Amino acid sequence: MDSFGYLFRFTTFGESHGKAIGAVVDGVPAGLKIDLDFIQSELDRRKPGKSKLETARKEDDKVEILSGVFEGVSTGTPIAMVIFNSNQKSKDYESVKDIFRPSHADFTYWHKYGIRDYRGGGRSSARETASRVAVGAIAKLILRELGIEVESGIYSIAGIEAKEIDFDYARKSELNALDKEVEKLQKEAILDAKKDGDSVGGVVLTRVKNTPVGLGEPIYYKLDAILAEAMMSINASKAVEIGNGVESTKIRGSKNNDPISPDGFLSNNSGGILGGISNGDEIIIKTHFKPTPSIFIEQDSININAEAVKYKLQGRHDPCVAIRGSIVTEAMASIVIADMLLLNMGSKMDYLKRVYKESK
Amino acid sequence: MDSFGYLFRFTTFGESHGKAIGAVVDGVPAGLKIDLDFIQSELDRRKPGKSKLETARKEDDKVEILSGVFEGVSTGTPIAMVIFNSNQKSKDYESVKDIFRPSHADFTYWHKYGIRDYRGGGRSSARETASRVAVGAIAKLILRELGIEVESGIYSIAGIEAKEIDFDYARKSELNALDKEVEKLQKEAILDAKKDGDSVGGVVLTRVKNTPVGLGEPIYYKLDAILAEAMMSINASKAVEIGNGVESTKIRGSKNNDPISPDGFLSNNSGGILGGISNGDEIIIKTHFKPTPSIFIEQDSININAEAVKYKLQGRHDPCVAIRGSIVTEAMASIVIADMLLLNMGSKMDYLKRVYKESK
Amino acid sequence: MDSFGYLFRFTTFGESHGKAIGAVVDGVPAGLKIDLDFIQSELDRRKPGKSKLETARKEDDKVEILSGVFEGVSTGTPIAMVIFNSNQKSKDYESVKDIFRPSHADFTYWHKYGIRDYRGGGRSSARETASRVAVGAIAKLILRELGIEVESGIYSIAGIEAKEIDFDYARKSELNALDKEVEKLQKEAILDAKKDGDSVGGVVLTRVKNTPVGLGEPIYYKLDAILAEAMMSINASKAVEIGNGVESTKIRGSKNNDPISPDGFLSNNSGGILGGISNGDEIIIKTHFKPTPSIFIEQDSININAEAVKYKLQGRHDPCVAIRGSIVTEAMASIVIADMLLLNMGSKMDYLKRVYKESK
Amino acid sequence: MDSFGYLFRFTTFGESHGKAIGAVVDGVPAGLKIDLDFIQSELDRRKPGKSKLETARKEDDKVEILSGVFEGVSTGTPIAMVIFNSNQKSKDYESVKDIFRPSHADFTYWHKYGIRDYRGGGRSSARETASRVAVGAIAKLILRELGIEVESGIYSIAGIEAKEIDFDYARKSELNALDKEVEKLQKEAILDAKKDGDSVGGVVLTRVKNTPVGLGEPIYYKLDAILAEAMMSINASKAVEIGNGVESTKIRGSKNNDPISPDGFLSNNSGGILGGISNGDEIIIKTHFKPTPSIFIEQDSININAEAVKYKLQGRHDPCVAIRGSIVTEAMASIVIADMLLLNMGSKMDYLKRVYKESK
Repeated sequence: MDSFGYLFRFTTFGESHGKAIGAVVDGVPAGLKIDLDFIQSELDRRKPGKSKLETARKEDDKVEILSGVFEGVSTGTPIAMVIFNSNQKSKDYESVKDIFRPSHADFTYWHKYGIRDYRGGGRSSARETASRVAVGAIAKLILRELGIEVESGIYSIAGIEAKEIDFDYARKSELNALDKEVEKLQKEAILDAKKDGDSVGGVVLTRVKNTPVGLGEPIYYKLDAILAEAMMSINASKAVEIGNGVESTKIRGSKNNDPISPDGFLSNNSGGILGGISNGDEIIIKTHFKPTPSIFIEQDSININAEAVKYKLQGRHDPCVAIRGSIVTEAMASIVIADMLLLNMGSKMDYLKRVYKESK
Repeated sequence: MDSFGYLFRFTTFGESHGKAIGAVVDGVPAGLKIDLDFIQSELDRRKPGKSKLETARKEDDKVEILSGVFEGVSTGTPIAMVIFNSNQKSKDYESVKDIFRPSHADFTYWHKYGIRDYRGGGRSSARETASRVAVGAIAKLILRELGIEVESGIYSIAGIEAKEIDFDYARKSELNALDKEVEKLQKEAILDAKKDGDSVGGVVLTRVKNTPVGLGEPIYYKLDAILAEAMMSINASKAVEIGNGVESTKIRGSKNNDPISPDGFLSNNSGGILGGISNGDEIIIKTHFKPTPSIFIEQDSININAEAVKYKLQGRHDPCVAIRGSIVTEAMASIVIADMLLLNMGSKMDYLKRVYKESK
Repeated sequence: MDSFGYLFRFTTFGESHGKAIGAVVDGVPAGLKIDLDFIQSELDRRKPGKSKLETARKEDDKVEILSGVFEGVSTGTPIAMVIFNSNQKSKDYESVKDIFRPSHADFTYWHKYGIRDYRGGGRSSARETASRVAVGAIAKLILRELGIEVESGIYSIAGIEAKEIDFDYARKSELNALDKEVEKLQKEAILDAKKDGDSVGGVVLTRVKNTPVGLGEPIYYKLDAILAEAMMSINASKAVEIGNGVESTKIRGSKNNDPISPDGFLSNNSGGILGGISNGDEIIIKTHFKPTPSIFIEQDSININAEAVKYKLQGRHDPCVAIRGSIVTEAMASIVIADMLLLNMGSKMDYLKRVYKESK
Repeated sequence: MDSFGYLFRFTTFGESHGKAIGAVVDGVPAGLKIDLDFIQSELDRRKPGKSKLETARKEDDKVEILSGVFEGVSTGTPIAMVIFNSNQKSKDYESVKDIFRPSHADFTYWHKYGIRDYRGGGRSSARETASRVAVGAIAKLILRELGIEVESGIYSIAGIEAKEIDFDYARKSELNALDKEVEKLQKEAILDAKKDGDSVGGVVLTRVKNTPVGLGEPIYYKLDAILAEAMMSINASKAVEIGNGVESTKIRGSKNNDPISPDGFLSNNSGGILGGISNGDEIIIKTHFKPTPSIFIEQDSININAEAVKYKLQGRHDPCVAIRGSIVTEAMASIVIADMLLLNMGSKMDYLKRVYKESK
C-alpha cells in the first residue's frame, strides 16, 4: 500500500535506480494556484549534496507536473508529478546484490517478495521521500492560503540537544539546526562519525502554527495517531513524540496538565492536541531518526544463501539522515493537516448547510 | 472515523455513560473457534476496580456476541459485540457539563462538534478501550492458532524504570509490572500521587513473538507506522518507540546496527522491523502514557462561555492509566499483526496460486 | 466487507436468525436532530406482513439507538442501532441445512467459507436490508434539512409496466405502485404466482429531487457508478439503469442528448447525471429485481455431499421482493447522496476557506 | 477519487490534452512476469483510428513502465505506467471553451470545480480509459496464470441484437461483433448515423470463464455490485445487467432459478453470481452504452454566462463508443476479478494457516 491520506490522498511510486519516482495527488480542491517554483524549492531543500554533512551524491530532483493543473490552477483532478532519475551508479550495488546489509530493508524485502531491486535499495530507499516533499509542497500551498505554517529543525544530534528553539535560524543553517549555539557541536559529531566511516542519529522538531480547533477525527483517525503514523513511515524513524511526550511520563498530572484561561492555554505540554483533536495551540512533534545503517565499517552479515559474509559498504551516503529527514517531516505534517482540514468540513451540519447553499 | 485496520477491520461505538459500547469486527476468516470465555477474560484483565492502584469504579464489562458466530465458530461475516453500560454515576458530571477540564478532550470536542456528551467524557472516555480489548481478543485467537504471542507489561512509572524484563511476572502482578524488584517503588509512586489527589505517567512495553518475516506493507502501511498509529490512538498516549527508539538517536550506526549470522540477528535494536517489514525477530514497542489529567487538585480553567473558573474534579479515577493501558496495547498490537498477516497473503504470486488451487 | 460509503459510512451486522441485526453509522455531522419516530416509520414501511402481497412472517423491527445521540441530537460520533430478532422459526430450516436451495446464496457461502448459518439464509438473508433502511432514515434526515427528497415506487411487475409515474400514489399503495391504473394487473400477477407457489420479479423506480449540481467524484466514485453499486448490492437485484438507460442504446445521439436552455435542461434522458456528476435535474434510477428464488415448487438440487436431491421450500416468503425492495432503494439512494454531499465540500478552495473561517 | 479496487488497487491521472495520462497500480503480487508487449497489444485493441467505424483521430498510446518491475518481473511495489499524449489538436476546442456541450460533462465539471480543462473534455474524456486498459492488462496477466479468461464483444448496436454469441469471432471483427450474421446490419446502423453526423448506442457482453467459487465479499463488496460500479464508471455507460438481468424481472422464479445437479448448474440465469459471490459458472455482464453525445448536428445549449447558444461540434469523434468500450469492459472485469481473488485469500483460516506456514 503506497498511498496515504483520506481526502487529501496521494500515492507514490518508483525505485531509487529505476526510470523515475513520482506521486499522484488526489483530493486537491479546485482553484488552488499551483506554484511550481515553490514545489521545486522544497525539493531543493531536501536534495542531497548541499554540504559536506550530506552524501556527495548529487540528484537533480527536477519535478514535472503531468496532470491536474490548468493555466496554473488546480482543477480538482489528480495531480501527477514525476522526477526522472539521473546520476545513478547502479554498478556500485552489483557487489551487494546477494548480500543483506545489516539493519537495511534488504533482508525483509527479499523474504516478503522473493525478489528485490537491489540497486540503491530500490523502493526502500529514502529517495522515495522526494515524492513526499513534492506532495507536501502542494499541501503547504493549501495551508498557506489559510495562514497555517509548518516548520522544522534539528533538535538533537547524537544526543546533543538544542537549548534554544529558533525555527528561523534552522532555515538558514546547513544543518537545519534549531539552536545556533549547539550547532557547532552537532556538526562536529557528524563529521567525527563521517571520518570514522560511521553514522549518527538525530531528533527533529516539527511545529504547526495557527491551526483551528477541531482537526482530527475520533477515535481511529486522531490527529496525533496519524501524525505518528506519518512520521514513523519516514525512513530511519524509530520514535515519535507529541508535545512533551516521553517527558510527560516522568512528571505528575498537576504539572503536566495545561491550565486554560480566557486568553488560551497557559502551557502546551499537550503539544496542541487533546483527545486526538487540535486545540488551536502549536502542534509539536518530535521524530527520532536512528543513525543510518549505511556505514563504511566492516560488519557481519549473510547472503541470500544464508552463508556468513563480511560486508563493507561502498558508495555515497549521508552520515546523518535526520538533516534531510527534517524537510520530510514538514511535508508529512503538512499533508496530515491538509487532510484533516478537509475531513473537518463534515463535522457540523452548519458547515454542510453553508456549503450546500453556495453550491446551489 | 471510528474504524481501524484494512482487512481485519473493526468499528467501535458508544459513550462512557450511554446505553452501551461495542464493536463490529469485519474480516475475521471463517473457521475460527470463538472462545467467548477467553474474550471475557481479556476484558477482565482490563476492567477497573481490581486493586487500589486503580479507580474504585466497578464495571462489569460483560461482553455479548450478536452476530458472525455459528455453533461457536466464525462464519466470515461481521462479529458484533456489545457491552451494556452499568454502574454509571452520570450525576457526578452535572457539575462539569459547562466546564472544560484541563488537558481533557472536553474543549476540543465542544469546539469541533458544537455539542458534547459530557457524562464521563462521553466518546472520548477511555471506556472505549474495552471495545478494543474485545476485538483484540479475537485477533489473539487468530494469532494463537499460528503460534504468535503478544504480551505486555509496565516498563516504568513516574520515571522509575524496570531493570529486568519478565513478561511472565507481569501477568501475575497487580501492576502488570515487568520487574518484580522495582515494582514496589513503582507502586509507591502511584499511591503517593493518589494520596495527593494527583496522578503519574508510565511506559508500557509490548512484545510480539514468533512472527514470520514479511509483515508490513510498503511504504505507507509499514508495520512500525501502523503500530505507532495504533498505540498513539490509545487515550493518554503521547509517544511511541520501536526497538531501542529514542536511545538509537544517541549512539552510532556501528553500535546500533544488528549484525546478521546464519542463525539469525545478533542483536535486536531494530525491534524486529526493518524497512517497515517484520524481520522475524521479536517486535518491541514502547508506549508512553502521560499522567491522567483527572486529578483531585484545583485547577484553572474556563467554561463554555470562556469565563475563568476554578475546577476541582469529583468522581472516581485511575491515578495511573498506564496499568490498564498495558492491556490495551496488547489488543492493538494483536489487531495490527492479524491485519498484516492477512495483507501479506497477497505479497507473492506463489501464495495466490496456492490458495487458488485449493479454492477450486 | 460489510461497510459502505466514504464519509457517510456505515457497517451492518447480523444474521436472519441470530440475536440481532444492526448498523453503526459513522460520519453523521454533529447537530442533526435524530427523529427516532421517523427512523421507526421507515422501518415500518419495509417490514413484512403488511398485506397478502407479502410474506406472512411478522417482524417487529423495533430499532434501538445505542450511541452517538445526546439529548436527541447527533454528536458527530458513531450512531449504533440495533434490532433484536424475534418471531424466528429456525426449525423451519433444519430440513435445508445440508441442501443448497437453487439460486440462493447457500451454495456460494458454503464454498467460500466452509461453514454457513443456514437458518433463514443467515447473513445472506434480505433481513439485512432492515439495517440499511435504518441507516437510510438518518441519511434522509440530513437531506431533509437541505430540501432534498428521495422517493420510490414499483415501475413494473412481471413485465407489466407503469404508464403514469405518480410517486405520491406509491406512498398510499400497498404495492408501492407508481401507476394506479396498472396496479390491479400487477397485483394479479403477484397473487397468481403466489397461488402457484411461484414468484415474480419487478422493477423499482427511484427518484432524487432538488440536488445541487456537483455531486459525484471523478473518475471512480462517480455518482452513477456508486448508485449502481448501491442498488446492485440489494438482494435479488440483477440490473440497474440510470436515466433512460437500456432505452438509450436504441436511439440516436441527436434524440438522446438533453439540450440546455437558460432555464435548464430541456429533457432528462441523462437521469440527472453527466460525467458521473449530478447536473441538478432529477436523478432517475431503475433497479431490476429478479423473482425471488424462494418458491414452493419442487426443484432439482444437490446437498453438501454433492448428491442430487429434490427440494421443496417450506416456510413463509414474499412472492415478490421488489415491493419491499423499493423502500431499500430509497435508503441506499439517500445514503449515496448524503455521502456525496459531504465529499463535495472539498471540491473547491472557496468552500474550504469558508468553513475554515467559521471554525477559527 | 481517482482510485479503484481494494487490494489490487490503481489510481489514474491525466487529461485528454495534457502532457500525459497514466496509472499507478498497487497490490500486484511479486513474481508476476510483466509482459510489456501484451500490455501494449491490449492498448492497441482499444486505440482509435483502426477503422472507419471509429474516430479518425490517431493516438499512439505507447505505454512506458516507470517502476515496480525488475528484470521483467513484478517486485510487489507499485507499477507506474505513463502514456505521453500526442496528436492533440487543442485548437479544435477553442471555440467550445465557454460552451457546455449537451449531455457532456462540461456543465457538471464547471459547476463542481469552477474551472475546467476544456481541451478535448479534459479529465472527463474517454481517453482516460486507455489507462484502465493498461491496468487491466496487468490484471489479465495475473488471471492468465490461474487459467481465468475474460472476453467481450458487441451484443447490440442501435437495438440490433446478436442472435449467436461467438467471442472468438469478436476478436477478429473490426466491430468486436459477437454475431457474424447481424454484424453487417450493425455496421450499417453505425455508418448511417455517421453519414448524418449522428451517433448510435450499443450493448457489450463481457464474460469471465473459469473462476473459482467464492469471489465477492458480503454485503457491500459483492462481486455483482462492484462489477456494476466498474462498468457504470466507464464513459457513456448507462445500464448494467448481470446474467439475464432485465429479462429476469419478466419471468417467474420457477423459470429463472438455476437448478443444480452433481455436475453443476443446469442453467445460468444468475450470470455466475449468487448472493454476490461467484458460483463457478460463467460470469455474464451486459453494459449499455448510450450514443455518444458528440454529434455534428446543431443543438441548443448555453454558455458559461447562461446565455442561449447554438452549438455544432467540430473535430473527430467515434460514431459509436460501444466498440472501443468493449475493450474497456474487459479491463474493468479483469481488475475486479484480480481484486476479488486477493480478497478471497482471507476468507478461511485454512488459507491463512497454509500461507503462514510457507512464509515462515
